[in-house]
Amino acid sequence: MKLTMQSAKVAIVGFGTIGSGVARLLLESADRIARHAGRRIELACVVDPDLGRSRNVTLPEGLLTDDLSRVTDDPEIVAVVQLIGGLEPARSIMLRLLDSGKDVITANKALLAEHGPELFDRARELGRSISFEASVAGGVPIIAAIGECLTANRIESIHAILNGTSNYILTQMEEQGRDYATAVREAQRLGYAEADPTMDVDGTDAAQKLAILAHLAFGARVDWKQIPRVGIDTVQLADLRYAAQLGYRIKLLAVAELVPEGLELYVSPTLVRQGRPLAEVRGAFNAISVVGDAVGRVFFHGLGAGQMPTASAVVADLIDTVVGRARITFQTLDLWSEAREAPVTVRDPAKIPGRFYLRFPVEDRPGVLAEIAGILGRHRISIASVIQQEAEEEGQGVVPLVIMTHRAPEGAMDEAMEAIGKLSCVRAGSVRLRVRGQPQMQER
Amino acid sequence: MKLTMQSAKVAIVGFGTIGSGVARLLLESADRIARHAGRRIELACVVDPDLGRSRNVTLPEGLLTDDLSRVTDDPEIVAVVQLIGGLEPARSIMLRLLDSGKDVITANKALLAEHGPELFDRARELGRSISFEASVAGGVPIIAAIGECLTANRIESIHAILNGTSNYILTQMEEQGRDYATAVREAQRLGYAEADPTMDVDGTDAAQKLAILAHLAFGARVDWKQIPRVGIDTVQLADLRYAAQLGYRIKLLAVAELVPEGLELYVSPTLVRQGRPLAEVRGAFNAISVVGDAVGRVFFHGLGAGQMPTASAVVADLIDTVVGRARITFQTLDLWSEAREAPVTVRDPAKIPGRFYLRFPVEDRPGVLAEIAGILGRHRISIASVIQQEAEEEGQGVVPLVIMTHRAPEGAMDEAMEAIGKLSCVRAGSVRLRVRGQPQMQER
Repeated sequence: MKLTMQSAKVAIVGFGTIGSGVARLLLESADRIARHAGRRIELACVVDPDLGRSRNVTLPEGLLTDDLSRVTDDPEIVAVVQLIGGLEPARSIMLRLLDSGKDVITANKALLAEHGPELFDRARELGRSISFEASVAGGVPIIAAIGECLTANRIESIHAILNGTSNYILTQMEEQGRDYATAVREAQRLGYAEADPTMDVDGTDAAQKLAILAHLAFGARVDWKQIPRVGIDTVQLADLRYAAQLGYRIKLLAVAELVPEGLELYVSPTLVRQGRPLAEVRGAFNAISVVGDAVGRVFFHGLGAGQMPTASAVVADLIDTVVGRARITFQTLDLWSEAREAPVTVRDPAKIPGRFYLRFPVEDRPGVLAEIAGILGRHRISIASVIQQEAEEEGQGVVPLVIMTHRAPEGAMDEAMEAIGKLSCVRAGSVRLRVRGQPQMQER
Repeated sequence: MKLTMQSAKVAIVGFGTIGSGVARLLLESADRIARHAGRRIELACVVDPDLGRSRNVTLPEGLLTDDLSRVTDDPEIVAVVQLIGGLEPARSIMLRLLDSGKDVITANKALLAEHGPELFDRARELGRSISFEASVAGGVPIIAAIGECLTANRIESIHAILNGTSNYILTQMEEQGRDYATAVREAQRLGYAEADPTMDVDGTDAAQKLAILAHLAFGARVDWKQIPRVGIDTVQLADLRYAAQLGYRIKLLAVAELVPEGLELYVSPTLVRQGRPLAEVRGAFNAISVVGDAVGRVFFHGLGAGQMPTASAVVADLIDTVVGRARITFQTLDLWSEAREAPVTVRDPAKIPGRFYLRFPVEDRPGVLAEIAGILGRHRISIASVIQQEAEEEGQGVVPLVIMTHRAPEGAMDEAMEAIGKLSCVRAGSVRLRVRGQPQMQER
């Protein structure tokens, strides 16, 4: 490198797994990063309340501190990687960093999904930038793809696997025949799931990421809490087996689709036909399938979480920030801006149509199928296929009845499910999942 | 849009299929593009020697001209989309545009692969930018991904399907059982292949694109003509069938892989295990699998050619150019620069090891397999599997012998093939293809 090369000072706030990965890249790949940034990126400070914990990177003497003002008071530090999770104090720290004149890079999707409008407004007022490639799909550059590369397109749909934990658990269940609880424990043991995996398995994490993508792709100001979401905690091993029998796999899909009536948004375990790219995504991977009116379908696949894939995205944002690209992108994206007219309206979830996979635990006696089919028929929901099997244990008296429907509105399905639930032959524990694509037809 | 919004004037040089697509997007999606660019992008001029040809877009009166000076003499035109194919006059026009102060966007990979150093040097001297997302893999944003999004990584390998025509032909052969010549005619009829498809089917197009990606990902200054390349014109229907029998599909892969000895580069029809993402790429699609040391494997899939996918990439570059991002990217990428030290050396093609698929037309008599196996053994090439079948026509006397080898250096394979070719039992028309991955082991 040229000796005269200028340098840019940066800091990391939050020295956990991702923070250590970012520090490792900045320290161990400094020359390569300098080549890409046209200047050396100097890690000047790392802030974390826990000074004692051991990490898999050794910082130079004096870099680690628990005092945020060492960052905010140093005018030479131009960009800060903010990796504090959760909402508070993450939000306050982010505002303090912006107020002190720093451009910020973050991986905190919950913070953006919840406080995006406030944070982006403040950054705009102050002429600063917020970059967030790492907040969705980890190492897969989907934020840049949608925000910068597909900008000539009207985005028509996004179908994505955005939660690696859920996908890992579903894959374990499918490939190893493990039940849900065992697969969750295995995921925890291997570090793919948190001690409390609720936010991953109940669809919250995927809904927050979908809200960010929907905002980026459609300009839709979406409250992630309004996105209808079903998690994988409702999926049983039996469902994966019936799906396989019907030629499908079950994936936790996050879907945003522009239709004449508006933008359809939901997160749901969904039956995807075997052989389709999204169906073949295994383990802790993420994948995103985007359709644009000019480009057609573009498919992205990679690790959606983990220390180094996420750090890769954070450092790319850091390079973008110090070279000045992030500032331009932030201004042109104009995200969560009150000034910007919302180009689409979000569709009433009760009206989102689709095909459904239904499983009812029913009494093993004549006439049951007729009763259930009758209710579906009265709600104008037609049946595409049925699986009814004998009781696994002799004399148990309750058997699963599996029905795949043709396309029906979610509202009609709600009503039909309620009516079916009241039948004396139907026991508690019915399951309803979405199905992607048409029966016996080529799917897009 | 705000009435006070500024605007940027741009021009198109070369009004063929892609040029018409770009014009369509600029005219029909003007509002959306203005939203992404923070200003209106005004198509001020379209230059083409053929003023009469009908295109699928109607330009406003007075825009189309055959006079390039209407662009070069207009200081208000800031960016020009240069879509003239081939080397000349494309090169001269590109230099003239740069000299007249325009930033340039191009989809011409042959021009970049051949004259990259001269064009990029000139642009740097003049403080201008050249953007070329559309030159590789059409609508798939692989240039941005490698050049901007994976910059924290040491790229370890690229395995890619970069020629949609070849992939379409191979898919037709595999799925429809068509022979090579019939599949080529079908591709021509549907517009997937040119009247003279040589550059697509002989690996030239893929090698030129690979040279660009290798330059971007590894900083390797590669003369595309030095990349060993084999096209699909050597592949027979029988090879696809034997490959399928062995659990593989044949794809025209462009490969760049960093190994301790340097950078391995080649284009070759390659057996890829069924079920691997690259094996499942069908029709005119492109796909790129990139491995980075931090991010792991990232996979991209989309339409690699065609009017609107390519126009989508061109217009994204145009937006990048008018907002100022392209200028920064061009400076930091520092491509084909003499000043920049080459971080890797390209490995001698004769030394690139691999597994190979071999098919020999041999006499149907005892001892043939022993003779061929003996020669392979003397060159230290071990055999992984063999298929020898009976002659399809009784008494024909010549049968195919198919051998899959274990890993062997290309040089040893060259020598063995030469020796085998001299055997009296071996007829002309032997085939050698590469094989990706290890036998009976999980491939990366």
